[in-house]
Amino acid sequence: MADSVQTAVLGVSGYAGMELARLLLHHPRLKGRAPVFLGRPEAGQDAPLTALHPQLMDNNGSALLMIEPFSWDLLKARSVDVLFLATPHEQSREYAPVALKHGIRVIDLSGAWRLTKSANRAVYKFEDESHMALQVQAKAVYGSPELHREEIRIAELVANPGCYATAVILALKPLLSAGWVDLDRGIVSDAKSGVSGAGKAPTSKTHYMYAADNLSAYGVFAHRHTGELLEQLAIDRSQIMFTPHLLPIPRGILTTSYVAFREKKSADEVASLYQSFYADSPMVRLFGSENLPQIQYSVRTNYCDIGFELDSDGRRCVIVSCLDNLLKGAAGQAVENMNLICGWGEAEGLV
Amino acid sequence: MADSVQTAVLGVSGYAGMELARLLLHHPRLKGRAPVFLGRPEAGQDAPLTALHPQLMDNNGSALLMIEPFSWDLLKARSVDVLFLATPHEQSREYAPVALKHGIRVIDLSGAWRLTKSANRAVYKFEDESHMALQVQAKAVYGSPELHREEIRIAELVANPGCYATAVILALKPLLSAGWVDLDRGIVSDAKSGVSGAGKAPTSKTHYMYAADNLSAYGVFAHRHTGELLEQLAIDRSQIMFTPHLLPIPRGILTTSYVAFREKKSADEVASLYQSFYADSPMVRLFGSENLPQIQYSVRTNYCDIGFELDSDGRRCVIVSCLDNLLKGAAGQAVENMNLICGWGEAEGLV
Amino acid sequence: MADSVQTAVLGVSGYAGMELARLLLHHPRLKGRAPVFLGRPEAGQDAPLTALHPQLMDNNGSALLMIEPFSWDLLKARSVDVLFLATPHEQSREYAPVALKHGIRVIDLSGAWRLTKSANRAVYKFEDESHMALQVQAKAVYGSPELHREEIRIAELVANPGCYATAVILALKPLLSAGWVDLDRGIVSDAKSGVSGAGKAPTSKTHYMYAADNLSAYGVFAHRHTGELLEQLAIDRSQIMFTPHLLPIPRGILTTSYVAFREKKSADEVASLYQSFYADSPMVRLFGSENLPQIQYSVRTNYCDIGFELDSDGRRCVIVSCLDNLLKGAAGQAVENMNLICGWGEAEGLV
Amino acid sequence: MADSVQTAVLGVSGYAGMELARLLLHHPRLKGRAPVFLGRPEAGQDAPLTALHPQLMDNNGSALLMIEPFSWDLLKARSVDVLFLATPHEQSREYAPVALKHGIRVIDLSGAWRLTKSANRAVYKFEDESHMALQVQAKAVYGSPELHREEIRIAELVANPGCYATAVILALKPLLSAGWVDLDRGIVSDAKSGVSGAGKAPTSKTHYMYAADNLSAYGVFAHRHTGELLEQLAIDRSQIMFTPHLLPIPRGILTTSYVAFREKKSADEVASLYQSFYADSPMVRLFGSENLPQIQYSVRTNYCDIGFELDSDGRRCVIVSCLDNLLKGAAGQAVENMNLICGWGEAEGLV
Repeated sequence: MADSVQTAVLGVSGYAGMELARLLLHHPRLKGRAPVFLGRPEAGQDAPLTALHPQLMDNNGSALLMIEPFSWDLLKARSVDVLFLATPHEQSREYAPVALKHGIRVIDLSGAWRLTKSANRAVYKFEDESHMALQVQAKAVYGSPELHREEIRIAELVANPGCYATAVILALKPLLSAGWVDLDRGIVSDAKSGVSGAGKAPTSKTHYMYAADNLSAYGVFAHRHTGELLEQLAIDRSQIMFTPHLLPIPRGILTTSYVAFREKKSADEVASLYQSFYADSPMVRLFGSENLPQIQYSVRTNYCDIGFELDSDGRRCVIVSCLDNLLKGAAGQAVENMNLICGWGEAEGLV
Repeated sequence: MADSVQTAVLGVSGYAGMELARLLLHHPRLKGRAPVFLGRPEAGQDAPLTALHPQLMDNNGSALLMIEPFSWDLLKARSVDVLFLATPHEQSREYAPVALKHGIRVIDLSGAWRLTKSANRAVYKFEDESHMALQVQAKAVYGSPELHREEIRIAELVANPGCYATAVILALKPLLSAGWVDLDRGIVSDAKSGVSGAGKAPTSKTHYMYAADNLSAYGVFAHRHTGELLEQLAIDRSQIMFTPHLLPIPRGILTTSYVAFREKKSADEVASLYQSFYADSPMVRLFGSENLPQIQYSVRTNYCDIGFELDSDGRRCVIVSCLDNLLKGAAGQAVENMNLICGWGEAEGLV
Repeated sequence: MADSVQTAVLGVSGYAGMELARLLLHHPRLKGRAPVFLGRPEAGQDAPLTALHPQLMDNNGSALLMIEPFSWDLLKARSVDVLFLATPHEQSREYAPVALKHGIRVIDLSGAWRLTKSANRAVYKFEDESHMALQVQAKAVYGSPELHREEIRIAELVANPGCYATAVILALKPLLSAGWVDLDRGIVSDAKSGVSGAGKAPTSKTHYMYAADNLSAYGVFAHRHTGELLEQLAIDRSQIMFTPHLLPIPRGILTTSYVAFREKKSADEVASLYQSFYADSPMVRLFGSENLPQIQYSVRTNYCDIGFELDSDGRRCVIVSCLDNLLKGAAGQAVENMNLICGWGEAEGLV
Repeated sequence: MADSVQTAVLGVSGYAGMELARLLLHHPRLKGRAPVFLGRPEAGQDAPLTALHPQLMDNNGSALLMIEPFSWDLLKARSVDVLFLATPHEQSREYAPVALKHGIRVIDLSGAWRLTKSANRAVYKFEDESHMALQVQAKAVYGSPELHREEIRIAELVANPGCYATAVILALKPLLSAGWVDLDRGIVSDAKSGVSGAGKAPTSKTHYMYAADNLSAYGVFAHRHTGELLEQLAIDRSQIMFTPHLLPIPRGILTTSYVAFREKKSADEVASLYQSFYADSPMVRLFGSENLPQIQYSVRTNYCDIGFELDSDGRRCVIVSCLDNLLKGAAGQAVENMNLICGWGEAEGLV
């Protein structure tokens, strides 16, 4: 366990990058060791971090923080221990292997290294599926602390989970692990996300006039996060229908999942199962069935909130999960993973 | 077929009442015959309609329109032909039978007369389940023009459907009528509504701070509109899971329904089924699978928009429907029903 | 006075273009004579109007409406009488003179022809300030029916006012015309607009994440509409401070203007002045001082709502005006202008 | 200077109360000393804090925190040093004097003790204007650290400023202190606030349907915070027009103030004046004139952001200020005041 480490963030311009910068700048283990903020080498010149994100301006010297052009020499000169990649997946495919060679541990926020099965990776159309890429892939650990805590502690490369995937997996994993779900009847997971999930690039779908006062489904039977659900929940594509929707809110995800049980269960049994499964997980909050979680409760926290409602027949169950797509669904979970690989408390710096 | 009729609206203070007033004031068959606007008799004094709803103010004399205290004598004096009840269901249970006795046709926007099975009605806890009430119930026609057009034309009492119910029923009825759905696997209908659906009364859940930047599920396994789904879709309670959610938008409903087919179908077959089913229905718009409906498209119209996405296996289908909860989900559909019972075109005054 | 006319719209892709299409398609004088919808000639091929604006889809054949590539031959072949230009101002500078030569009357929604003084026009950096352009400019009538009704009736070229300008001018003109305002103390006009005013192009400022949950001032001392205020209110730049703000709403403008009177006035005197000034103006609604207008009241109408509050000293007055920036602030006022130049009722088709 | 103190909060149910609870629970000086949370004595029974505010739930034992019925004995038993009153002003008038008698220092978030002139207090209609109340009033210090830092350090009773008042006063005080403003021309301050400023009680004006997609002016020439402006800025009622507006956002205030200078100034001179005035104020952030503050930047921080734009004539200036009405405008500033009276750093616990 290190007392502290030197971190670096590549790709700080997006929303997840901004939240990651904020979390790292306030992390109790990183006091006095600001992350190295890195931009594309093409950009060439240093630029103030707060020019990009005025929200990060404070009276503790944040105005002096600069985004520097990326180079491996710079990382070496600064003795970077942990590199966060908040980059598009193509870039993460390129940078992560080199970082590992330099002995730098990597936490990648993209979809580049999350999927172990090539069939599931197809959606990303990675150019490089070479032997080396497969070797790197084999080292990657899916960064869900609730599911893979021990493997993460010793990982060189952590593939930070997708935002939707985190919400659905944490909602369903206890029931599936226990073998309670009648998979022949199929699972439905209806998910809704705020607009920050669509990224910072101005497009017709991130235009205020498109998103506001609206709701739309998208990526039906085709969303990139589906592969993560299949692998982490150990189910087949035919056993789940997953539909994301674009909510008219800045941030937050709510998922509503529908399952049928093989056998009748009581609400107490369901509650106990969840409590037991998440007993050691500080970032999951469980809600009673009379008080389902709402997006508001978890936004701007790193918690994943989970509640459920059981039908009076004891056979059909609706599970609701909520999280902040930029925190537990991205930057916050990345910091959890940093805490784990550094041997610190899982929730440090994440209140 | 009447050239025109005299209408009256009891309960004009709510959101559906306001939209109903607006539609009736602009209806081409009712020119020069403003509705009689009625308030609770206790209120006692005439009040200007535009004081309650400044949005209705125009330069055609709307400022002179008054809400008058309800009395049967007044209805008689004004020779009212059609009475709209935009009242709580308890009041509708009380007023509708008397109106029928007076020979006035009734279009009731509440849940008072929608359900034929007493088990489904239980959720409303009607006090009066007397023989007379049952006789009146027997006369009530469920006011879904797409399903019961011919019965509505001759109905004395039209039970205008619930907003969620309209959206779910129109999305699923073609598939269920055709017998395509594998009911053993169960249907899931995940529904989302804007805040106007929660009514005009200020409550902790209609507070801006509760609804804004939020999403919450409610009434899981327990929503009042479930009975309408069961009766109109002819399915059992165990065959559907229906969950409403409160969206941070003023108006609009989107439902996402999930079904499995008994046999493999092509997207063309599904599209043809819907086209055929709604061939004579002017207020349903069908969307191709590449272009699912969104709440924005139907809000402030009386259309119900329906689209679908079929999995590549041809067995699993996601159906999306959208409508404006105050129009097709309430006041607009009520005007459709008025058009039908008056022998006019179903879509008149509803552009 | 024509019974009907053939209209054409160039630039139907934006928000004002969509509203203009909607209004013209439902205008009682244009039944059976759909506008010719025109796109850039470069685009080359016909495209369905409802592919661009699904909101315009109805069951009256709207799916058949096509956007055709612009050409003067096409306008001639279709015998177009009135051409609406919903184009950027540079294009309006180019197209309007040619249309006039062809004997087509023009209603231009851009800022191209609104300003008579070259100093005020400087902000637009028009390339063509030739003699011909000045001659065309001399023919242009500022399309504010409340101020220039009679000139508009006979205009060849109507320069449809800016959205902010309309709201501020209608709020202040009665007081300034009456000479009540102490101009030495200066006027302040603080204006707030919804995001549709910023146009349909996806930019960092129209991104949902920028606009939502936010408010920002912009264009302080530098907004393009300032010139319209100066010319129409007949004041100097030093006599007004005008600041626009970007509101987190789709549409609607509210302006709050502050003036000091030369002499003490009573609230009744102020109210009478406004009533008298707008006695013949069907699209202005006046509100009492106890009930100031709100954005909600005028959105999706063509009304400009005006109210005021007078300080107890009778010397200081706050005037609030509201309108829908896409209707009274753009497409609706354009239709008013069409009504006037065709000799029809000013408010026809604008309920 | 105390190492730590025992705090108590009366009135934790509202939005400011919730933020205050959150800040105090995470304050570095109060570790291990949770505040005593107090409810109305009538309520009678202990209630979990997180039942009222699920947002406060964490995995550090927050579920065990209880709201206890208020009594002076309880405060004594817990050795409370500092009592926060987040109560209606009538209650603060009653409780504060008794607390002072018990030797407890009070930070009052209501309007009860902010105004020294009885004419300005009239708007609150305090029942008790007895000699004793006047004596207590005389002890109260207006809790604006930027204006009264030294007096606050030794205050027994701090009257925490109003949210609008804070934003307007901090925007204008430097210019007025320097004597630059031509008061004969009058100041205009146009202010806009999110809905949390209207309180937690469900009313017709806090209904989502009223506030969303809307903007409305209110309290014109009559807002309660006006008295604070007059006293703290040392101006007369006739020298300022202040208009608040209700924004469709949960939280945040933006004010736009308009002044004329007696003499021409350069932008650099204005910037220098502000920098000098706020040199020792850690919670004010100054923005250059090219980059005005926006509500988004300050929301969920305790900063008051200030920027300005000077007209090219060097005589007219628009000043924009932003803050979070629940933090710098209420709970955050209250914690600043606690820090000052305890001898701690002004910004501690307020990052």
